[in-house]
Amino acid sequence: MSLLKGNVLYGQSGGPTAVINASAYGVIKEALLHRGIIDEVYGMHYGIQGALNDDLYRMSDQLMQDLEKLPATPGAAFGSIRYKLKNYKTDETDYIKLMTVFKKYNIRYFFYNGGNDSMDTCNKIDEYLRHVGYECKVIGVPKTIDNDLPITDHSPGFGSAAKYIANTMMEIVCDNISYPKSKVAIVEIMGRHAGWLTAASHVATHNGSGPDLIYLPEIPFDKEKFLEDVKRVYTEKKRCVVAVSEGIQDLDGKFIGLAAQTQDSFGHNQLGGVADQLAELIHKRLGFSTREIEFGLTQRCAAHMQSKVDLEEAIGVGTEAMKRALKGESGVMVCIRRDSNLPYKSSFFTHPLNEIANVEVKIPRHMINKEGNGLEDSFLNYVYPLIQGEVKPKYDQGVVGFCYLKLPKKYN
Amino acid sequence: MSLLKGNVLYGQSGGPTAVINASAYGVIKEALLHRGIIDEVYGMHYGIQGALNDDLYRMSDQLMQDLEKLPATPGAAFGSIRYKLKNYKTDETDYIKLMTVFKKYNIRYFFYNGGNDSMDTCNKIDEYLRHVGYECKVIGVPKTIDNDLPITDHSPGFGSAAKYIANTMMEIVCDNISYPKSKVAIVEIMGRHAGWLTAASHVATHNGSGPDLIYLPEIPFDKEKFLEDVKRVYTEKKRCVVAVSEGIQDLDGKFIGLAAQTQDSFGHNQLGGVADQLAELIHKRLGFSTREIEFGLTQRCAAHMQSKVDLEEAIGVGTEAMKRALKGESGVMVCIRRDSNLPYKSSFFTHPLNEIANVEVKIPRHMINKEGNGLEDSFLNYVYPLIQGEVKPKYDQGVVGFCYLKLPKKYN
Repeated sequence: MSLLKGNVLYGQSGGPTAVINASAYGVIKEALLHRGIIDEVYGMHYGIQGALNDDLYRMSDQLMQDLEKLPATPGAAFGSIRYKLKNYKTDETDYIKLMTVFKKYNIRYFFYNGGNDSMDTCNKIDEYLRHVGYECKVIGVPKTIDNDLPITDHSPGFGSAAKYIANTMMEIVCDNISYPKSKVAIVEIMGRHAGWLTAASHVATHNGSGPDLIYLPEIPFDKEKFLEDVKRVYTEKKRCVVAVSEGIQDLDGKFIGLAAQTQDSFGHNQLGGVADQLAELIHKRLGFSTREIEFGLTQRCAAHMQSKVDLEEAIGVGTEAMKRALKGESGVMVCIRRDSNLPYKSSFFTHPLNEIANVEVKIPRHMINKEGNGLEDSFLNYVYPLIQGEVKPKYDQGVVGFCYLKLPKKYN
Repeated sequence: MSLLKGNVLYGQSGGPTAVINASAYGVIKEALLHRGIIDEVYGMHYGIQGALNDDLYRMSDQLMQDLEKLPATPGAAFGSIRYKLKNYKTDETDYIKLMTVFKKYNIRYFFYNGGNDSMDTCNKIDEYLRHVGYECKVIGVPKTIDNDLPITDHSPGFGSAAKYIANTMMEIVCDNISYPKSKVAIVEIMGRHAGWLTAASHVATHNGSGPDLIYLPEIPFDKEKFLEDVKRVYTEKKRCVVAVSEGIQDLDGKFIGLAAQTQDSFGHNQLGGVADQLAELIHKRLGFSTREIEFGLTQRCAAHMQSKVDLEEAIGVGTEAMKRALKGESGVMVCIRRDSNLPYKSSFFTHPLNEIANVEVKIPRHMINKEGNGLEDSFLNYVYPLIQGEVKPKYDQGVVGFCYLKLPKKYN
C-alpha cells in the first residue's frame, strides 16, 4: 500500500473539555512520527471557521515546551466554533472555500475534534471530498463532557468532568453539613439532553457526602413529586442537597429553565436557570431558604483535576485517529470499547460518521432508581473506572502553566 | 512554673475554609503530646452552641485514621455556627451555662477557631472567666478566606482560597478565549468588605489568562466608569472578563447587590447578586451578552487545591495556640509575622484579642491601581508567597477521602 503524502489539518469544535487539547496532542505527536509522509500539521483557528478563512496555526512555528503543555491546558487551545455546514447539494459556497485551502496546503488528513454537531461537519466534509474526488482521509475525534455520543462506550472529556463533579460535590456537602441547619442547596450541572454528568454526583453520595436527590433529563420532572422529596429530606435532616441537570423537562416535555424565561417579562436577562426556578418553587411552596450553586464553566475546564484514565484515552483517540487515517480509513470516528471493567481496560475501534452525527445517547433507564431521583449501582460500575487516576498538574510559582499557541501569521 | 492540668475545648465558628480542620489537627496533635497535663480534647459540635448545649465530640472516641484525614477535609468538621454572645454584664445566661460545662469537663484550655466575630466570642469568654476567677487559658486561632483579620500579616484559609481563585480563573479565561467572540464574563468572588480574594484573581492575569478588570469593595464603584471600562476592553478584544467582589458598593456606600434586592418586588428570592446586577446593567446599556460565574461555596471548600504554605501555617497556628496556652498565655490570638518574602519565611506571635475582635482590614490603597480597576505589583509580592506549594490530595478510587468524626454520645 502506497501511503498518501500530504499535510494534516486539525480542528476543535463545540464546547471545550478539560482534555480536548490532549487529543490535539495525540494527533500532532503521532503525525510527527511520520515525517516524509506528513510535512506539516496545521491547526484551524476557531474550528471550521479557520479553515474557511485560511486562518491556520502552523505547528512547526510553535515552541516545543508549549506543545508539551497542551494535554494539561483547558479550553480549546486552537479556538472553537459552533458552525453548521449546509448540505453541499443545496449550497456549495463553503465547500469551495474549503477546497481552496485544502489544495493550497495540500491537506490530505483532516481531523475534527468534537461532539455530535462536529461529527456532522466532519461527515459532510468527508462526503464532499469523496464527491469531488479529492483524496483526503477524514476522521472524527470524539470529545464531549456530556458523554452523549453514540456507539462509543464513553467520550473523552466526560471522565475528567465527572471526577471534578464528584469531588467538588463532596466538598460542597462537607461545607453544607457544617451548620446545624442548612439551606436547601440546589446544584445545577451541565447536560442539555443527557444526564451523565449530573449522575456523576452520585459518586459523592456513594462516598459519604453527596446530594440527597438527583434529577436527570431522562426522567420527566414532576414538580409535586420534587417538592415532596425535598420536604421529606429536609424535615428529616434539616438539610437537603439537590443535584439537577440543566436539561430537566416538565411532564409536557418543556425545559424547566426555558419555561420560566418565557413567563418572565421583567427584563431580568439572566433568569431562567433551572436552579433559579427550583429555588423559587421551593421558597414559594415550602418556605425553605435555598442556595443555588452552578458548576458553570468550571466543570468543563477544571484541567487541574483530570482523570488519568480520561487523559490517556483523550491522547489515545487523537493518536488512533492519525494511525487509522494513515491506514486509509476515512469517514469514521474513533470510538472506545470497554474490554474489561475490573481491572478497567479499553481499546479503540472506528465507526462510520454518518451513523454517529447528530445522535445523542442518554442514560439507560435501568441505571436510574425507580423513583427517578437517584442512581443505581449499575451506573457506579459504569462511571467509576472513568474517574480513576490523577495527573499531578505542573505548578510553577503556585499556578499551573498552560499552553498558549503562537497565533497564525495574519495576526503578526 | 507549675502547669495547669485539665482538658481542652476546641471549636470552629463562622464560614469554613479549605484548611480550618488543619488548625483543629494542630491543636489536637499538640495536646496529645502533653498527656498527664491534658487528659482529653473535646470538640464543640457546632461551635459555641455545642458548648452551651453540652454537645461535645470526645477526641479519644475518634478513629486515628479519621484524625489523619482532618487537614485535607473541607467544611467545618466539628460543625460551625454564627452566634453572638451578649455582654456578660447585660445578660449572664449563656455564661452560666458555659461554666457548668467547663466545670463538668474540667476545661482549662479553650480554643476558638474563626474570624473577626469569633474572636469577639473568644474575647468575651476570656473576660468572663477572668471575672469569675475560673482559671482557663483562652486563645483565638485565626481563620478566614477573607483575609480581613488585623495585626496578623494574613490569615490561614486565605492562601488556599487565593490559589484556587487564581488557578480557576486561568482555566475559565482559557475557556473564554476559545471562541472568536465571547460574552462578557462576570465572575463574582466572596468578600463582603475586603477585596483580598477578588484581588487574587490578578495572579491569573499576571500569568497570561486572567480578568481584564477587577473591582474591589475598597474602591467606590462608579457604574459609568465601569461601563466605559467594559466597552473599551470588549471593543478591542471582542471579549472581556470581569472579576468583582460581592461587596462592591456604589458611590453612596450602598451595596450593589443589596441595592437591587430592595428594588425588586417580583418575588425572585435569589436575585440581588452583584454579578446579576452588573450583567443586567451591561445588557441594558451596552447590549453585550453576558455570562455570570459565581465561585460560590467552592472557593472556601476546594480542599483539593490547598496551598502548602497555607496548610502548614494553618496547622501551625493550632499547634502554637496549644503551646502558648501551656505557657500560660490567655486572651490572645495567634498571629503570623512575615519574616522574609524571598524566600518566604514566617513565624508566630500573639496579640490581645480585644484589639482584634470585630476589626476588619482592607487592601491598602497603594496595592490597587490608580484607576481602581486592577492591582499593582506590590499586591503580587504580598500574595504570591501565600499560594506556593501543593499538597497532593489522597485519592481513593478516584475521589478524596475525607474525615467524618464520630458524633457525640447523645446522638447514639
